[in-house]
Amino acid sequence: LLILQRRLILCGPDDSREISMMQARTPPQRSALGLDVRFAVSAMTSESPRSSLTGFRQWWEQRRRAHTFKVTRIPLADLQGWGFAPETGSLGHDSGRFFTVEGLRLQGDDTGTWLQPIIDQPEIGVLGILAKEFDGILHFLLQAKMEPGNLNTLQLSPTVQATRSNYQRVHRGGAVRHLEHFLGPARGTVLVDALQSEQGSWFWQKRNRNMVVEATGPIAESADFRWLTLGQILGLMRSDNLVNMDARSVLGCMTLAAPPRRDETADAFEQALVRSYDADAPTAHTTAEILSWFTEMRARCGWRARLAPLREVTGWSRTPDAIADHGRDRFDIVAVRVRAGNREVQEWTQPLLEPLSRGRAAFLTRSFAGVLHMLVQARAEPGLPGIVAMAPTVQNPAPADIPDALADGEDPFADYLHGVPASRVRFDTVLSEEGGRFLRAETRYQIVDAGPDLPPLARDTFRWLTMHQLMMLLRHESYLNIEARSLVACAHSLWSPSGKP
Amino acid sequence: LLILQRRLILCGPDDSREISMMQARTPPQRSALGLDVRFAVSAMTSESPRSSLTGFRQWWEQRRRAHTFKVTRIPLADLQGWGFAPETGSLGHDSGRFFTVEGLRLQGDDTGTWLQPIIDQPEIGVLGILAKEFDGILHFLLQAKMEPGNLNTLQLSPTVQATRSNYQRVHRGGAVRHLEHFLGPARGTVLVDALQSEQGSWFWQKRNRNMVVEATGPIAESADFRWLTLGQILGLMRSDNLVNMDARSVLGCMTLAAPPRRDETADAFEQALVRSYDADAPTAHTTAEILSWFTEMRARCGWRARLAPLREVTGWSRTPDAIADHGRDRFDIVAVRVRAGNREVQEWTQPLLEPLSRGRAAFLTRSFAGVLHMLVQARAEPGLPGIVAMAPTVQNPAPADIPDALADGEDPFADYLHGVPASRVRFDTVLSEEGGRFLRAETRYQIVDAGPDLPPLARDTFRWLTMHQLMMLLRHESYLNIEARSLVACAHSLWSPSGKP
Repeated sequence: LLILQRRLILCGPDDSREISMMQARTPPQRSALGLDVRFAVSAMTSESPRSSLTGFRQWWEQRRRAHTFKVTRIPLADLQGWGFAPETGSLGHDSGRFFTVEGLRLQGDDTGTWLQPIIDQPEIGVLGILAKEFDGILHFLLQAKMEPGNLNTLQLSPTVQATRSNYQRVHRGGAVRHLEHFLGPARGTVLVDALQSEQGSWFWQKRNRNMVVEATGPIAESADFRWLTLGQILGLMRSDNLVNMDARSVLGCMTLAAPPRRDETADAFEQALVRSYDADAPTAHTTAEILSWFTEMRARCGWRARLAPLREVTGWSRTPDAIADHGRDRFDIVAVRVRAGNREVQEWTQPLLEPLSRGRAAFLTRSFAGVLHMLVQARAEPGLPGIVAMAPTVQNPAPADIPDALADGEDPFADYLHGVPASRVRFDTVLSEEGGRFLRAETRYQIVDAGPDLPPLARDTFRWLTMHQLMMLLRHESYLNIEARSLVACAHSLWSPSGKP
Repeated sequence: LLILQRRLILCGPDDSREISMMQARTPPQRSALGLDVRFAVSAMTSESPRSSLTGFRQWWEQRRRAHTFKVTRIPLADLQGWGFAPETGSLGHDSGRFFTVEGLRLQGDDTGTWLQPIIDQPEIGVLGILAKEFDGILHFLLQAKMEPGNLNTLQLSPTVQATRSNYQRVHRGGAVRHLEHFLGPARGTVLVDALQSEQGSWFWQKRNRNMVVEATGPIAESADFRWLTLGQILGLMRSDNLVNMDARSVLGCMTLAAPPRRDETADAFEQALVRSYDADAPTAHTTAEILSWFTEMRARCGWRARLAPLREVTGWSRTPDAIADHGRDRFDIVAVRVRAGNREVQEWTQPLLEPLSRGRAAFLTRSFAGVLHMLVQARAEPGLPGIVAMAPTVQNPAPADIPDALADGEDPFADYLHGVPASRVRFDTVLSEEGGRFLRAETRYQIVDAGPDLPPLARDTFRWLTMHQLMMLLRHESYLNIEARSLVACAHSLWSPSGKP
């Protein structure tokens, strides 16, 4: 609703400079269809003249063979260009750029203080997917990109993943390819543009700019990039560890129109899912009620977080190989050496955060009045801007070894999820988190249609939202956390033809 | 658009616990009219059987006489229960509650480091106005409330201004009257509920919960509280230093329906203003364009702010009477003793921030296609959550003695404002900022209809927005800063019958 495109009508005082500036910012009318319909049509398209899935598989196999990529664990002392600051003990790069590993001090509301290491990367980067219409269908340019933390080397990534350091060329490598389409005077038509947070237990207030931009001219071909329909990308979300976190984050920010109603042969879940995209479908709560609930959750949270020198982090130990959380099983900070063929720099060393267990992120779903709703949890993570965000129904590991900021007692739905019959599990794929900062960080993403045996909502930290409501919130900053955004993208795959298992 | 009230339709799996919870949260149908229409109707009402302006004036005069209130400047050393922490030098209360005066360290993007004192009040308080329908018209319960920093003692305040410390009764005074209508199981129907930031150069990431709640039962009368229509309140906004900052902040978060079209006798400004509330009126930019622009402004800002020990703040000096910004003219931190009759505690001492010059906040306006637009500035303030917010066209003083975070060169509109003819100045009132934290902090609020001689928008830090677009953004956290929210409330007074000069 919010971005209902209105035709620009200008009159009033004459100011040609300003009017021409406005006109320059008005999207060209590429199509009579609304943007949400164009996204949905692309999501319905699993084969196009420009792009076939067979062609994709061949290309992907080639890319995997073409890239030599070796990641080796090294002692922290072997990091080159990185060091521990004498005064604070924090781990950073000599240039002062990229990121640092700092301490986080979290104070609860009368419940004590907790400390942990955390990655501090204050600059806002760009996660950008370039779009272009071929044969009337929007295609999206994805990249076969290696990241040192990926357990399978290559993953399918946005057209551009650029930190400020990247695009200011701090590491003296090549420029970031295609970045000019997203920033600066020659950029294309902006279709999606929102700041969004990332992992709130591992990053300190990290936000990236999630963009989809429609190219205004021809795009040069290159071996590591490939145009895909949204339907194809959603289908590939079903493969373990293929579509990377940054791509999922951007896909999760798109607003899709309601797909066509299913015929009677479709099952009730799919019928309800499709209706969930409809702006006019009935909802369990009005959006005003959801916003008021979320305001209350943020106001209730008494957590207070701030950065601290890493040397003040007690309960963690520094061995030659890691800053380790001994006795608990959250994560270590380790170091790697990377040798790669297609990165901007041929060889480098860097720290990575290595989680010590696989994560889980699951939405439970349910129909009200024939409309599918996702069960969203208000959840505190110490590093999030705003601290509280809308999260999956179940999200593990817990943000830290500390009491829940918003509710007492056991998580009522984790156990339910363990016992749920396979027929109710609609999406179940292991996907990787940011391979540029995390080493082999995997999360099992699930969408599970809850049965009548669902435990009652004993806490007020949960709310049922439709897909349309989630997409409207995703136009704004910091409502949905990164795991919830990934699940929104996963949900799109449940009605996209190539996404069906 | 976002809170289009939808009728709750429930079916699907039976879960009586959950459904009853949902129903409990559904607003009772008090009126067939939408909330925005009910607000607008109240704004059109300058006299009601329940409340007359004459009666208000008599009551106000009584309240002024009834309250003994004395504020005395005292040396910092005479603060009772407050002290400077030995290690950090920060000024705080012995209980650890209320607020502290800390240091702020601001790093620019390759441009240096700045330090200043800043008030740190991490708890989210409630600013709440109680609403109730009398004779079919919404009335709002305002309070005659003294704050130590108010230069005229009493101001017209929300029903409730409660910090967490307040409502947890840390200072062992009485309970906050009427708070039960805003929090807890017996509260009324929530009409407005949003977290919003406050002064970003004086507060560290302060946010309050701005609420309007419709009472569900009878409200006990008491001498310091009075029901007023929205039209009456808007009229009173024209009086210097009468409607306090917290009341303006809450009023600024209301969504008002478009008032009736003016007849031909109304001037072009008022015709255009009324159309500016219309959701379907043409706009200079789509909301998607505005959100993308704002995302770019936030991403562009290279400022990095964090708290630091107050003793690390160089360039400021501590005299017996103040922490003073010698040689510049921003603010001092001073101490006062307060003796009051109607506060929860009869006598206390506390620090206050005393600005050393009067502030200015002005919206320039202009019509496009007969629809009034406000010229909004993206502006960085180091203490704001998100750092960049939408601000008035002209806002003084500058956040600090440092280069602009978003643009080079002179502010193009400050000079224009000085030379503008009086006939173009539509609103011009001196209003106070938070009297509980600031000593005699005044800001001159102006709304000025720009002429054809308006300088061009030489920077891309400005955008034209309609009233409807501003109100839609105000449902979400941290888009408009506190000065811009005050001006939105001021703009409502320009068409409200009792608001006309």
